[in-house]
Amino acid sequence: MPAYIAARISIADRNAYAEYEAGFMEIFTAHGGKLLSVDEAPTVLEGEWTCTRTILAEFPDKEAALSWYNSEA
Amino acid sequence: MPAYIAARISIADRNAYAEYEAGFMEIFTAHGGKLLSVDEAPTVLEGEWTCTRTILAEFPDKEAALSWYNSEA
Repeated sequence: MPAYIAARISIADRNAYAEYEAGFMEIFTAHGGKLLSVDEAPTVLEGEWTCTRTILAEFPDKEAALSWYNSEA
Repeated sequence: MPAYIAARISIADRNAYAEYEAGFMEIFTAHGGKLLSVDEAPTVLEGEWTCTRTILAEFPDKEAALSWYNSEA
């Protein structure tokens, strides 16, 4: 069963984040990750959605998702 | 391009919500909606995620997503 990670992040330092991003995809795809959506200005239908970037990622299963997440820590 | 709706809802009245749910899928699928995930206890990796139910839906495009959303209003 696929597992999804919805992340709402706030980027304070764009330069530092760019360094993180440079190596991101290699590790992410190695864990079976697929980016469904990366949006810095999603349409907010209700309530508040305060963050710089919204990311939606799909993994083959929950184990793969957590294995990626923990590899980043 | 597929569009995604991530919804975090709090269900106060389960009976009233069940009535809403009964007609949900018919309208939802008519707008091309696909439920990727419905989770009442998602794994929270960081921060707070306070809600009763988390829903992740995919639509063929943003127009279809908004057309569904507005039909529900």
